[in-house]
Amino acid sequence: MEVVNRYVATRHHIEGAPTEADFEVKEETARWAPDSGEVLVRNLYLSIDPYQLNRMKRSSASHLAVDSILPGQRIAAYAGGEVVASACEEYKAGDVVAGVLGWEDYTLFKPSPAVLMSKVADSAAAADDAGFPLSHHISVLGTSGMTAYGGLFEVGKPVKGEKVFVSAASGSVGSLVGQFAKIAGCYVVGCAGTKAKVDLLKDKLGFDDAFNYKEEPDLKSALKRYFPDGIDVYFENVGGEMLEAALANMNTYGRVALSGVIAEYTGGGRRAVPDLLDVIYKRITIRGFFAWDFLPKFAEFNAIIADWIREGKVKVVEDVSDGLESVPSAFAALFRGQNVGKKLVKLA
Amino acid sequence: MEVVNRYVATRHHIEGAPTEADFEVKEETARWAPDSGEVLVRNLYLSIDPYQLNRMKRSSASHLAVDSILPGQRIAAYAGGEVVASACEEYKAGDVVAGVLGWEDYTLFKPSPAVLMSKVADSAAAADDAGFPLSHHISVLGTSGMTAYGGLFEVGKPVKGEKVFVSAASGSVGSLVGQFAKIAGCYVVGCAGTKAKVDLLKDKLGFDDAFNYKEEPDLKSALKRYFPDGIDVYFENVGGEMLEAALANMNTYGRVALSGVIAEYTGGGRRAVPDLLDVIYKRITIRGFFAWDFLPKFAEFNAIIADWIREGKVKVVEDVSDGLESVPSAFAALFRGQNVGKKLVKLA
Repeated sequence: MEVVNRYVATRHHIEGAPTEADFEVKEETARWAPDSGEVLVRNLYLSIDPYQLNRMKRSSASHLAVDSILPGQRIAAYAGGEVVASACEEYKAGDVVAGVLGWEDYTLFKPSPAVLMSKVADSAAAADDAGFPLSHHISVLGTSGMTAYGGLFEVGKPVKGEKVFVSAASGSVGSLVGQFAKIAGCYVVGCAGTKAKVDLLKDKLGFDDAFNYKEEPDLKSALKRYFPDGIDVYFENVGGEMLEAALANMNTYGRVALSGVIAEYTGGGRRAVPDLLDVIYKRITIRGFFAWDFLPKFAEFNAIIADWIREGKVKVVEDVSDGLESVPSAFAALFRGQNVGKKLVKLA
Repeated sequence: MEVVNRYVATRHHIEGAPTEADFEVKEETARWAPDSGEVLVRNLYLSIDPYQLNRMKRSSASHLAVDSILPGQRIAAYAGGEVVASACEEYKAGDVVAGVLGWEDYTLFKPSPAVLMSKVADSAAAADDAGFPLSHHISVLGTSGMTAYGGLFEVGKPVKGEKVFVSAASGSVGSLVGQFAKIAGCYVVGCAGTKAKVDLLKDKLGFDDAFNYKEEPDLKSALKRYFPDGIDVYFENVGGEMLEAALANMNTYGRVALSGVIAEYTGGGRRAVPDLLDVIYKRITIRGFFAWDFLPKFAEFNAIIADWIREGKVKVVEDVSDGLESVPSAFAALFRGQNVGKKLVKLA
């Protein structure tokens, strides 16, 4: 079987903030054969995540952990889709799957323990057994949920009653971290960059408080106001000045779960110059991590998160654009803070 | 009983690199009474440590953890001395003790579980049971040893065969960390600021290699040369550029035991601007700590360290100045890298 596969590719390595002009939509012919052992998936929802920018750089620490993205080449990404043809027993045509696919119309994959892929439902029309739409499997039940759950509970380790600060709190990961921390009995404050996002955090997602960092001339004082008793856990998505301000307001034995530093990805902002005396004398732990660290616990985390969604304890915020050609603008918009919740692209 | 007590005090808060002129020797009358419950100690060896500078600042994260030092006031410091008079059962005149005393001729203390103090020998003439001179109880068996042992093994957690980098490696703590890491079966490289110190590390203290950081125009490349397979544990005493270079050369799951950042204490050097992408993608843990965190394990650590000294596995390097009036110059010299090993002042 042959299909025409349109895919999004970078035109060159990207070093600063991405723009639509950095990308192009290309075409190739994808060939599936019955004896290939491969599965051909028509993609339905694509995950649009800031970390992909690091993969697009010529040189980045990211390349040590994740394959770099070469100009002109297909881009692997978390996504969900429908099996069109299968040459292996585990999958059959019509199955709906979620896992590592790509920013493209079709993806071929060969099942192996090294490939994160799970079967979600028996047909695209049906929801999964739990009644979740496919998009949830690319957001809250995908890598965003894994990052939020693992980062908060295995790295941040909040204890009931502790104070948790979340930056980029209306984003794909932050919006979940805050809700998870509330479930764990913590006091939770988030920051975001618009009034609408701040309202969402307070009114819909149950944060104890939230603020617009763009309206705070002095982030250290702002955090002192929102955390008069100090911060115990900081879930870091931003970097730069925000990290400095959080460290200045952390309590003894505070923990920084370093998930991302979107303000530092583009090289446009000022990088964090943490006060290391704070880290020493307050015995703070700063620990970097990413979603794949928690892969062995993916099913366990998802079972818990799914229960929370069913019980109404976790609200899922998804921000969906339409069509493969919208991937570049959707991706670029992440770095201008234009998404609310998880950014997805729905394919026709 | 009354004694004239000479003590070293700061003339004002100190914000930059300290000089002798920032200090003065003052006098007071110390009064001990038989019904006071107090012990009067004539100090014999004083510990001179860089962290004291943070206590002398007007404002510092240090003040959250340790009392700040007020101008004109006595300065608490680890020291050893001989009991002159005692109003409690645990101590008698002639006992030799080590613990928190002060930069002064005499210190009065009231025994309590909150005061770190241990009896070392029955008389100043005798060594302790293990045959160690009193000075060792203020260096390797005092807070320097506790910092080195606790920081390396409880924070850095090196595993046999791992690669350990120690900065300020000829200093009071660094010189012990390197030797302890060798005992743990690690590959150990240290850096220091003179050829003599580098020779000491390689020829006498058993480091696998060592280099003079002042002769390295590019610390990142230098560390790449000394650690072609990367660094697993970085025991950090310096801060600034050294931390950036170490992070750039660390392996996945590397650990930074953040003990001190002497280059950042005086505000003279450039502060570290760590590449947080390194920390995230290599899942590095940076953890601040200080000696008192390990107080509950002080005796346990010391028993192990004492065995190592007796077995010749650990060499003790002490750098002794004479007389209370030498305290200011001895302290100021720490920040010019003029000490080799543990800086002590011996009183007449």
